[in-house]
Amino acid sequence: MSDLQAYGVVLAGGSGTRFWPASRKSRPKQLLALGPGSDSLIARTVRRIEPLCPASRVYIATGAHLLDATRRELPWLPEPAFLGEPSARNTAPCIGWATAVIHRRDPDALVAVLPSDQHIGDVEAYLAAVSLALQAARDGTITTIGLTPTRPETGYGYIEAGAARSPGVRAVVRFTEKPDRANAERYLASGRHYWNSGMFFFRAADMLAALAEHAPDVYRGVERIEAAARDGGAREQAAVAEAFAEMPSVSIDYAVMEHLAELAVVPADFGWSDLGSWESAWELGQKDERGNVAEAGHVIVDGDDNLVHLSGAAQGKLVALVGVQGLCVVDTGDVLLVMPKERSQDVRSVVSALESRGQRDRL
Amino acid sequence: MSDLQAYGVVLAGGSGTRFWPASRKSRPKQLLALGPGSDSLIARTVRRIEPLCPASRVYIATGAHLLDATRRELPWLPEPAFLGEPSARNTAPCIGWATAVIHRRDPDALVAVLPSDQHIGDVEAYLAAVSLALQAARDGTITTIGLTPTRPETGYGYIEAGAARSPGVRAVVRFTEKPDRANAERYLASGRHYWNSGMFFFRAADMLAALAEHAPDVYRGVERIEAAARDGGAREQAAVAEAFAEMPSVSIDYAVMEHLAELAVVPADFGWSDLGSWESAWELGQKDERGNVAEAGHVIVDGDDNLVHLSGAAQGKLVALVGVQGLCVVDTGDVLLVMPKERSQDVRSVVSALESRGQRDRL
Repeated sequence: MSDLQAYGVVLAGGSGTRFWPASRKSRPKQLLALGPGSDSLIARTVRRIEPLCPASRVYIATGAHLLDATRRELPWLPEPAFLGEPSARNTAPCIGWATAVIHRRDPDALVAVLPSDQHIGDVEAYLAAVSLALQAARDGTITTIGLTPTRPETGYGYIEAGAARSPGVRAVVRFTEKPDRANAERYLASGRHYWNSGMFFFRAADMLAALAEHAPDVYRGVERIEAAARDGGAREQAAVAEAFAEMPSVSIDYAVMEHLAELAVVPADFGWSDLGSWESAWELGQKDERGNVAEAGHVIVDGDDNLVHLSGAAQGKLVALVGVQGLCVVDTGDVLLVMPKERSQDVRSVVSALESRGQRDRL
Repeated sequence: MSDLQAYGVVLAGGSGTRFWPASRKSRPKQLLALGPGSDSLIARTVRRIEPLCPASRVYIATGAHLLDATRRELPWLPEPAFLGEPSARNTAPCIGWATAVIHRRDPDALVAVLPSDQHIGDVEAYLAAVSLALQAARDGTITTIGLTPTRPETGYGYIEAGAARSPGVRAVVRFTEKPDRANAERYLASGRHYWNSGMFFFRAADMLAALAEHAPDVYRGVERIEAAARDGGAREQAAVAEAFAEMPSVSIDYAVMEHLAELAVVPADFGWSDLGSWESAWELGQKDERGNVAEAGHVIVDGDDNLVHLSGAAQGKLVALVGVQGLCVVDTGDVLLVMPKERSQDVRSVVSALESRGQRDRL
């Protein structure tokens, strides 16, 4: 992989409520330290890809209101790395914008688009898969990574793979929306279906051409920004605001991927998790001998399989769990959540209750 | 009860760890709002006795290090009401001291000694019992209140009652230490045994005479303070320090009550609880329709029979309990305790663990 040098675009918009109260509108999931280790997910994402996308070639696409918090997690990145979207427009507009910025800098650029909030257990296997995907992209085919499914998951999109194009790379037959249970079982058994990782690899010029062809309204917005940049850049920020006001809110899958005649997928298996709930944070966390995931220094006199997550004003707090099993205890200073791990999905109902009460300061 | 006017001595030393982490060395149980209502236990104690012991006649015997925190709970009391013990010496020395202070002010004074950290459900019945006890005391007999036992409790001392002395007042046969289970069962069935309430009623002169006779080392300390006070009071504070350094640490039961030939008890039943654990705080607390005891404003989306207690920096915090039953959740800002109510006794083990770790700042 040594000769491959790509640009990274890390998608760090994020909203979502599954890690409330640790995740907030002003502090989405990728800024949290979930799973093993004490670094935030976005910091781990940027560090992980460094062998292929050095810090000087990484761009972070995030919400304008998240810029400061995001910079704090990535203090080693240069300031131009941070692209603040004036409004949330799903993935196509921000990938288009970031790709144009990279293309302006290096017309031959190879780009890796990476979600910022996933867990990856086997970094070596991950880098090998990304290398393969970048090689396929360098040859002119937009490429994705498909994850070998391990369960009949109905919450993810799938990619159906076809014929081999080269060792480790297959053609994409189609993108599939979230399946029902029966189809998910069928996909799991097929050996041809993979989870859509949300990772994409392409030459910048290829993506811009694909946007021009399949998503002209997104492309027009990107062009408007580029025109302002060519004029010396003074109006660039205003052009970004105008472009984002006009571009549709649409995913890159829907706007581009599903329309491409030729698309490649690298099937892979590198201990991936989308960290979808507090329960998964416990599953991936570093456990003590009784299965508790908690920072050292807490007293856990008597309890098993609990998760303790402290942030904000609750950091450094002493937590004593006595005689409790399988609880999530999340303390952010202003909010405390206590629930059994298997109720993790019900965090949403608390968030809904707060919304309907108008307690937006705790969301 | 209208013609009875007594002096109150509220015992507010307190240590104990059963309400950790809300109770601390610097914030013992009587300063907490436990059970129903939002007033502290000591504030409720002083308010409750007001018809018999008006604010101008109440004295608070507390540790010198607790004076400020105690004053804050009782802002309507005049400053001379607060007696700060330079060191903890159990109940006999502080009752002796407070009695001498009152006797100096009013040689005919009638005194009610009351613990500061108990729950009383039926205030009318309580005042009636105290009135009876004060009448007996006014006639020259040191008197106590004995609580009708409702279970074979092995954690309390008992008073065995004998012949009736007057309506509602019986002679005390003996004080009994905490019994074993078999004796506790026997006491419960006997109709002659009552729980020792820790409340005592006497003429000040009678108690001083009893101390002089049965606890001369305590009496000497009290005398030393009185001598300094008679000399104009300039040396009184120093005399208090010297006296407390020399007096033995001994309970009034052991020093005086168990030696008295004549002692009366008023058997009573007024919804008493010593509030001995977080579980009892839940039992006595104001419950919502699902049995949760918590201040309004918390979200409890889905849970039953839980207790939420917030203090310090955690006041005003949003607490979400999802799918949990019978938990105590105590948050003081710097410490969080989560445990099933029935494990309340195990708070001690956490405290012990902290002591052995040297984390005294959380005790």
